[in-house]
Order: sequence, then C-alpha cells, then structure tokens
Amino acid sequence: MPGMEFNRVTDGVLKKLTDVLGPDGVVTDEETLTPFASDYTEDLVFMPEVAVLPRTAEQVQAIMRIAFEHHVPVTARAGGTGLSGGALPVLGGILLSCHRMNAIVEIDRSNLMGVVEPGVITQVFQEEVEKVGLYYPPDPASRGSCTLGGNVAENAGGPRAVKYGVTKDFVMGLEAVLADGSLIKTGGKLYKDVSGYNLTQLLVGSEGTLAITTKIFFKLLPWPPFRKVLLAPFDSLDKAAIAVTAAFSKGVQPSACELIERDAAQCAIKQLGKEWPHPDAAAHLLLEADGFTEERVDAEAMMMAEACMESGADDVFLAQDEPRMREIWSLRRSIGEAVKSINIYKEEDTVVPRDRIPELIRGVKEIAARYGLLVICYGHAGDGNIHCNIIKTVDDEAWRVALPKAITEIFQHTASLGGQVSGEHGIGYVQKEYLPITQGAVEIGLMKRIKEQFDPTGILNPMKMFL
Amino acid sequence: MPGMEFNRVTDGVLKKLTDVLGPDGVVTDEETLTPFASDYTEDLVFMPEVAVLPRTAEQVQAIMRIAFEHHVPVTARAGGTGLSGGALPVLGGILLSCHRMNAIVEIDRSNLMGVVEPGVITQVFQEEVEKVGLYYPPDPASRGSCTLGGNVAENAGGPRAVKYGVTKDFVMGLEAVLADGSLIKTGGKLYKDVSGYNLTQLLVGSEGTLAITTKIFFKLLPWPPFRKVLLAPFDSLDKAAIAVTAAFSKGVQPSACELIERDAAQCAIKQLGKEWPHPDAAAHLLLEADGFTEERVDAEAMMMAEACMESGADDVFLAQDEPRMREIWSLRRSIGEAVKSINIYKEEDTVVPRDRIPELIRGVKEIAARYGLLVICYGHAGDGNIHCNIIKTVDDEAWRVALPKAITEIFQHTASLGGQVSGEHGIGYVQKEYLPITQGAVEIGLMKRIKEQFDPTGILNPMKMFL
Repeated sequence: MPGMEFNRVTDGVLKKLTDVLGPDGVVTDEETLTPFASDYTEDLVFMPEVAVLPRTAEQVQAIMRIAFEHHVPVTARAGGTGLSGGALPVLGGILLSCHRMNAIVEIDRSNLMGVVEPGVITQVFQEEVEKVGLYYPPDPASRGSCTLGGNVAENAGGPRAVKYGVTKDFVMGLEAVLADGSLIKTGGKLYKDVSGYNLTQLLVGSEGTLAITTKIFFKLLPWPPFRKVLLAPFDSLDKAAIAVTAAFSKGVQPSACELIERDAAQCAIKQLGKEWPHPDAAAHLLLEADGFTEERVDAEAMMMAEACMESGADDVFLAQDEPRMREIWSLRRSIGEAVKSINIYKEEDTVVPRDRIPELIRGVKEIAARYGLLVICYGHAGDGNIHCNIIKTVDDEAWRVALPKAITEIFQHTASLGGQVSGEHGIGYVQKEYLPITQGAVEIGLMKRIKEQFDPTGILNPMKMFL
Repeated sequence: MPGMEFNRVTDGVLKKLTDVLGPDGVVTDEETLTPFASDYTEDLVFMPEVAVLPRTAEQVQAIMRIAFEHHVPVTARAGGTGLSGGALPVLGGILLSCHRMNAIVEIDRSNLMGVVEPGVITQVFQEEVEKVGLYYPPDPASRGSCTLGGNVAENAGGPRAVKYGVTKDFVMGLEAVLADGSLIKTGGKLYKDVSGYNLTQLLVGSEGTLAITTKIFFKLLPWPPFRKVLLAPFDSLDKAAIAVTAAFSKGVQPSACELIERDAAQCAIKQLGKEWPHPDAAAHLLLEADGFTEERVDAEAMMMAEACMESGADDVFLAQDEPRMREIWSLRRSIGEAVKSINIYKEEDTVVPRDRIPELIRGVKEIAARYGLLVICYGHAGDGNIHCNIIKTVDDEAWRVALPKAITEIFQHTASLGGQVSGEHGIGYVQKEYLPITQGAVEIGLMKRIKEQFDPTGILNPMKMFL
C-alpha cells in the first residue's frame, strides 16, 4: 500500500479543520477523545489525534481535502459497535464521526424508499418507518446504538437476513466522499440500474476503506403484521441442523432461523437467571415466521414445527403472543453479553453453506479442544453464519500462543467446507491476517488495486481489511 | 484506455487456439461465423476474426492467455439476445461463445442454491428448478434463448424484478477468468459474506468488460403456487401511474406491474390480430399477484383492483385461470415484436423513481414530437423502468441527424427526474455516449480505472460501456 508513512495532525491542520467545522466540531481534549478510541472489538484502544464532527457532506469533503493535502489518515466512525475493529483509528490521525449527520431526510411512501444520513441509529429509522406501515428488516444485534452508515460500511446482517437479506440488499444508492474530497453519487431511488459498474455494491461492506458515506437510499418493504416464534430443543447438533434444511425443504421462508448450542444456551440461561426447560439440550433451534396473513404464518409455523419433530426435536414451544415471543428471543439475545461475562474471548464470524453447520461446529470444537480452549457457538443457522466465541480457558502465555494458531485452523476448516472468514462482522483490523485463508492472492490483489483507485495515498482507514 | 491498438488474429494465434480447443472448437469460416456477428441490437453487424467454443474454465483460461500474449481483443457472447450490443465483436478479434458450457452443475435443495455454467438457457434452468419445487424468478423477455451467463453480464431484469429483484439479487458467487487468464472465485453457496470487497456484485452487470464468467452460484426460492393477473385500462396516463403508487401504498407486493401506453397497446393488439376491450385506453396497467396461499393472493389482487378503481380505471379484468392469464400477458409480451414490425426504431431503457413515470413519458413524447418522431412507451412501471421505443417516422437524413439529439434530450430529462440511462438493457456499444448524462466524470473515471485493474491492456470487450 503506497503512502503508509503518514504525517501527524499539526496545529496547522487543526486550524484548518476548525475553520471548516467551528470549535465545537473539532475535539482534541483527551477525555472527549477517549470514547472514540475503541469500539466493541475486544479490548483494543487506539487514541485518535483529533476527532471531527461534520454536519454536512460539504464539511466531509473539506475534511478529506485537508487530510489528503497533509497526508493524514482518516478513520470514519458511526455507532462504534463494530466487532472487527473497523472504526479503530489504529494509526491515530483524524477520527471522523458521523453522529451529527443523523437526519432522516425522507421516507418516500410512493417509491417505498428511505433517504438518510449515515448517523441515524438503525432502530430509530426502523421505528420511523414502521409508523407509516413500512419495514426496514436488517437488524444487527446492536440496532439500538449502531447507525445506518456503519451498517452500510460493514454490510451488517442480523437474524432477519435469512428471509430479507442483509444491508446491501436494501441499499439502492449512495452519496460518498473519496479520499481527495470528491463527492460521488451512485444509484438513487431506483429499483433497477445497470448504468455502469455497480459502485453502490462495491462501497457497501468496504469498511470505510474506499469512501465515506454521506447519504444512503434504502429500499423499504410493506410491514408484515403477523408473527410466530418457535423454540425446539434437540439432543444432538446434527438433528437440529437437519431440522434447518428440513424446514427450508418444506418451502417455508423463516424470518429467523437461529441455532444455540448447549454451551451458549447454558451461559444465556445463567445470565437470564431463570428456569428454562431442557437446559441440557445439545442445541436449541429458534424459528420465526412472519407475513401478511395469519393463515400463512400459522401454516409456516406448523411446517417448521413438523420439520423439527420429524428431525427428532425433544419438544417444540410455540409462542403466539408478544411476551412469550420476547421470552424465547431473550435466550438468543442474551448470549452475547453472557459470553462476554465469562472471561476474555475472541469472536469469530464463520459462514458456510448452511448444511455444513454440524461439520463446522464439530470441527471448531475439536480444534479448540486441542489447544485447551472452549468455543461457544451460536448464530444464524439459516444462512450458515455461526459466531464462534473462543473463551480464554488457559493462562495468558498459552492464550497468546494458542489463539492465532487455533483461529487459523478454524478458518482453514471453514474454507474446506466452502465457507468464508466473515459472514457479517467484517474483516477490519482483527481478521485481516486470516483473509488470505479464504481469498486467493489474485482476488486480494484486485481488491487492493481497487482501493488504490478510490484512495491513492492510502489515507482512508489504513491498516484495515488487508495485511 | 491503454492498448487500444490491437493485433489481428494471425495463423499462429489460430494454431494455438486449435491446440487448446481442437478443430471443432475454433470457427473461422464465414458462414458459421456470421451468426456471431450480431445480437438483438438494432441492425449492427461486426464480424469476428475467429469464434472459439470452450467447454471448460481451463480452456477459457488458455484462450485468455493466448489473447493476452498476442494482444488480441476478446468479446464474450452468451445467448446473443442483448439489446445494447454487449456481445458485438466491434473490433473483430476473438469471439468467445460460452454455449457449450451449458451444464447445470447442481441444484442443491438443502442450501437452496443452483450452480451453473454460463451457457445454460435461462428458461431451461427455471424449468429444472421448478421440477423440484423451487423458483428462479429473473425472467428477461428473451428467457427462452438468453443464457444465465449473459443475464449475469447484463444484470438482466424482467417483469418479476419488482417483487423478487434482478439477476444480481440471486448471484451469490462467481468463478471468472481475468484478461490475463487468471481464475478468480468469489462468494459461494453463502447467504452472507463480508470477506473483502464485493467482487461478485462488481462483476454482475459489467458486460464482459472485467472478466469472463465460467460458473455461477444462484440463490433459489421456494415456488409460490398461487397467481392472479389483472388488467386495467385508464383514460389517462396519470391515473394509471397513480394506481401504481396506490397499489404499493396498500402494502401489496405485485409480482409484476407493467404499464402499456396507448401506442404500445394498439400496435400489440394489431399484432395479436384480435378484438380487445378498451383499445383506445390511454394506458393499460397489468398487475400480477403471486404467493403461498390463495387467500393472500386473492387479497392482494383485490387490493390492486381497488387501487385501480380508486385511481379512476375504466374497468378491471381479473384472470384467475391459466388461459386467461396468458391472454392478458399476451398483450404485454407481443409489444416488442409488434414495435419491431412498424419500422426501424431505437429502444431506450430509461429508469426513474416510479412515481415520476408520468413526467418521464410526457417529456419523452414531447421531445420526440419536436423532432417529428414517435415514441412508444411500455415496461416495468413497478420499478420505474420504461422502455421508450423511438420509431423512425422521418426520412433517413432527418433520422440520422435528429436521433442522437432526441436521445440526448430524453436522457437529460430522465436525469432531471433522478433517473439513469439504463434499467436493465445495459450500456454496451450503443448507449456509451449517453452514460455521461447520468454518471459524473469522477464516477466514470473510477469505473475506467477499476477496469484497468481487471484488464490492464483493454482486451476484454473493447469499445463497450465507456467512450
């Protein structure tokens, strides 16, 4: 990567930034800077030299022109909830936070499109959209604090992706600023567009390494009013996995299809602090049906229940009302926090064809066991996206030595099943050394050269995605 | 673009190609070459120097290595049904036809994925998929003769895109060969993947200018067994357009939403040679509902009918059985051929936000009238994608002079409505001079530089997409 030797943020640069943003748009005191030094990724901390808080695309352009001229790195940050370190200002420099660019510009009911700035919190957008009977499905776990700009940068997923798709499937157009301050526009309120290469989809998931998003055009759907949730415990992981493919084979389209293996369920149950039937089940499957008629949702729920029973479920719990549905979801939703409370851990975000999940999980556990480590697995079984949390069960030195070896083996195993390194968390800072396990040298070479076209001097989010 | 001065196909090159493909894989006689000289785009003819017919990805790699070494242009061709000249070997050179790479490698019911070679005819794939209860929705008009590789190259659409999305929304992974013969693999049987930049989506719609597809991984859906079709005549275009947005506002998701304005309907009726109610209607709207329960499909059809009546439709015809549905569809499906039979014409593939359709069509007709030309408009109203067929109603000289001016004005008008030059036909050879009307210089500059990373010497489908 060219230009990796960057300049520091000088008083001259600070002066220029302040001229653009005003004093309240430029943060340099340590206390206010500290929250910008880390995200949700492990315990990593990198202090930026300055944080800038633009309100407009023009200000983002001006910031980039200054950074480009002075060869200072710029790391964009949205909600700061990323799990791969995408928002960490690893080399210091300028931290560009979009949290003041938080307008919902328009909810266009004629065209079923939402136009937003990048700093809008995902849940806020979802709720505004629902008020007019519409639906924005992508629902990353952090939806109460992550923002749409971050979702675009990471191509965020979530449980509903199995039916509705991930963030990329809803982005119809973007406005973004390149490293040199140029503004580009892609797509628009358009359901179809083949006018040139698909820059929109190249930018989605590019983790702030190609451009800084300043406006997003999202497709919206009509709100599906009916919903049912099922929970099925199984005495083997294989049976649960067979139930997943059995459900899809019946022609259902679950709006969630989550797998929780024993270790994950047990730490979630402990976290919830209440009794739970079948706490020793090898795996739980959580399935959801949603739709526009109660009849169809009932029929889908019934087919899912049948798929579970036919595959050997010990039981099937069906929740039809909100409190019961919330209760079932609480098991799944509390795993993240529960795992964090056990000990230091490293989360991997494996993705494989969904019928390879049992092989994936068995292999991951076997590899970890060889290094004396515990892995807790759970996640989006419907799209083969399993979060593997490696828990520190050995001393510091053994952890330091074993972890990268275990992770490498886990991803080699993932690759052998036709999978990839990350399904929805991104590569960012913490996974980049593993990317070559599933991506070939030619593919990575292309990606790096594509980056150079957007960011010739490498100032946009350096040290990310690629080694 | 570097290296635009190419070499001719010498005897030495032919010898090398024959060594790779055998004598039956290399075509040089004029008679056999002729069908490769044109596609469905106007009356353009460009003879290739040689056509090659590989059977494997390895052969495609070998062909590209020879072409790269000898600096000979290569134009990939699939079904040859493109409408923007993407498959025309404009500079001669090597025509690479993928029609012998036509294996359906796998229909994977566990993962709901289809894996195919690029030469599989779209309809053949759809029918194979339907046999096991699955659904591949993209349905370009030419689905009986176009192939999946061409659909990927052009990001083909069709009427069902309004509910299900276009080709890109079903491509989960690709195998492709670069200009220098390197093979790349992207994605796979994966519903989620954020491992590096989205090369898959960069390749879809790149019209053979970045790489040559050798394998495609498609997502499949469960087959929706119920269907209803409506046809509503309106005495004004505005009323029909209002009905479109009214239908979506009711929360329905039509599986087709087609607009046929008077001139289009009248030439189709003439072509069909039968009586048709309301032949003078200013516009017809064709709406389709599909789904998994008769109840929901009935309810959606009812809401669509209401939307039409509330918006001032003169009538609503509801077809519930196959013959009646086919009859209604015949009106829409015969327009293409009917228009062709009038006179020489030029088809534009405008796309705008769907609520701007009346302004689009009125503007297009006004512009054409100023040049003494007739425009026949019809297409995919649900996604704002209107085909504007400019008919030659003036003498040769006036046509030659007026046409580019009229087209330029039409696209300027499209741009002013937030639209783009092409919704589903692509840019290819015949629209490239108009691309700068909706794409900025920075965006086009990026695209050209991206191409250089895949194809540094410009041998892949030269003279396409960009001026």
